[in-house]
Amino acid sequence: MTVVRMHEWDADTRVDAAGDGRFTAHLTDRWSGTGGRPNGGYLVAFCLRALGEVLPHPDPLVVGAHYLRPGVVGPAQVDTEVVRAGRRLSTGEARLRCGDREVLRVVASYADLGAATGRTHVLGAPPDLPPPDECGDVYGGARLPDVTVADRVDLRAPEPHGWATGRPTGTPTTEFWIRFADGRPADTASLASLVDSAAPAVLELGETDSATVELTVHVRARPASDWLAARVTTRHVLGGFHEEDVELWDTSGRLVAQSRQLALLPTR
Amino acid sequence: MTVVRMHEWDADTRVDAAGDGRFTAHLTDRWSGTGGRPNGGYLVAFCLRALGEVLPHPDPLVVGAHYLRPGVVGPAQVDTEVVRAGRRLSTGEARLRCGDREVLRVVASYADLGAATGRTHVLGAPPDLPPPDECGDVYGGARLPDVTVADRVDLRAPEPHGWATGRPTGTPTTEFWIRFADGRPADTASLASLVDSAAPAVLELGETDSATVELTVHVRARPASDWLAARVTTRHVLGGFHEEDVELWDTSGRLVAQSRQLALLPTR
Repeated sequence: MTVVRMHEWDADTRVDAAGDGRFTAHLTDRWSGTGGRPNGGYLVAFCLRALGEVLPHPDPLVVGAHYLRPGVVGPAQVDTEVVRAGRRLSTGEARLRCGDREVLRVVASYADLGAATGRTHVLGAPPDLPPPDECGDVYGGARLPDVTVADRVDLRAPEPHGWATGRPTGTPTTEFWIRFADGRPADTASLASLVDSAAPAVLELGETDSATVELTVHVRARPASDWLAARVTTRHVLGGFHEEDVELWDTSGRLVAQSRQLALLPTR
Repeated sequence: MTVVRMHEWDADTRVDAAGDGRFTAHLTDRWSGTGGRPNGGYLVAFCLRALGEVLPHPDPLVVGAHYLRPGVVGPAQVDTEVVRAGRRLSTGEARLRCGDREVLRVVASYADLGAATGRTHVLGAPPDLPPPDECGDVYGGARLPDVTVADRVDLRAPEPHGWATGRPTGTPTTEFWIRFADGRPADTASLASLVDSAAPAVLELGETDSATVELTVHVRARPASDWLAARVTTRHVLGGFHEEDVELWDTSGRLVAQSRQLALLPTR
């Protein structure tokens, strides 16, 4: 008898080839955000698992995800298309369907980040945080019942987030450590989900939610550590629409992912 | 006899419906960048002109453009698909083909920015520039022969860019005024092209070119002025891959567009 031990992320984002670029999947209720709906980062994962099967390069380099409708827990389907397969880059499209409705469309370009040997010149710097084992849960122990992604992804900071303790800071920037709760190391594909696994920075402005319209992720390097330092910032809210920028840095001080989403505040 | 006066941008980005969501077009040599190849922002314009015809909302809100191959001057075709048409947002996909090769795939969500009545809270600020009529050409009068986009889009700053006078500043940030050279006011669709009409910020690091892999544009407001203040920044170059962030602000001090692209330095 063989026992295969699998991290929960890998089990919960599984896709099975069904021929002609189509994959079947099952969306669990274990990575859900507000309202118990599958988290946006979790939905992206199915598209990247499927694209990883059909594209020749190993690493997602840039991922554009357009959210069309809320995801639904249960059986799902991913249809992939190889748009272009070149020497240095390949591009594919994936459509995630729940029932007969498309919920997410992803266009992504893949590369071999191990072969990226060009110039490096970095002006930004990672968040200045004490080590993870000197930090506590950013939620301060509070949990919304349906927000199961908070049980799957550890977020740690020197102090709980202001909004989590009922005192939003008024400054829509948060910095914290992030890691899969079971210790699974992040790879380049799961980085594109981790950037969307924390609470939105606008909660520090007293807002209660934020709906993603589009998420773009630039994957920059293969992480050299399991804990990653995150910086989440919103700088421009106009008419309810706002960007949210996320940076993830590994403990060697390297930027591993950078994302920006366009999101909308709930109407009151 | 009727004489229709048309700004060159409108004439040069024309699309003609050919049925079933297909449009025909002609790529001119009048908006070209390095090497005489149609500028990336110019290619996006054809996709947005076509999507503007098939989607019910008036303003591009978020545009994701994946560059597959260089565009080719001459006849072209845009195939559109209405992915979802909702009450507040609609999403479409457009594929630009030159000959039988797809050169650009765009997924874009549209909205009515005139109806965006939610909260506004802005932490960023526009570039601090003297008025356009006190500024000069950022190129310092220099021109590369094939870079025709430089004749169509006015870029003005207090001093020419460092790289344009053979002295790159070493700091990959530039600030300048931008406007169509014939005075055409920018609208929300052309903002998505204007963000990619200036020289890359990495030229100030002594680089000679930058190839866009993917460009995402967030359109935030309808511009209240023809001149727009631009800020272009690159902060992280890793293995040749780098982001470039652009902000465009109108003279009322409002952010009208924000973009980020993932681009690659040429190999030496």
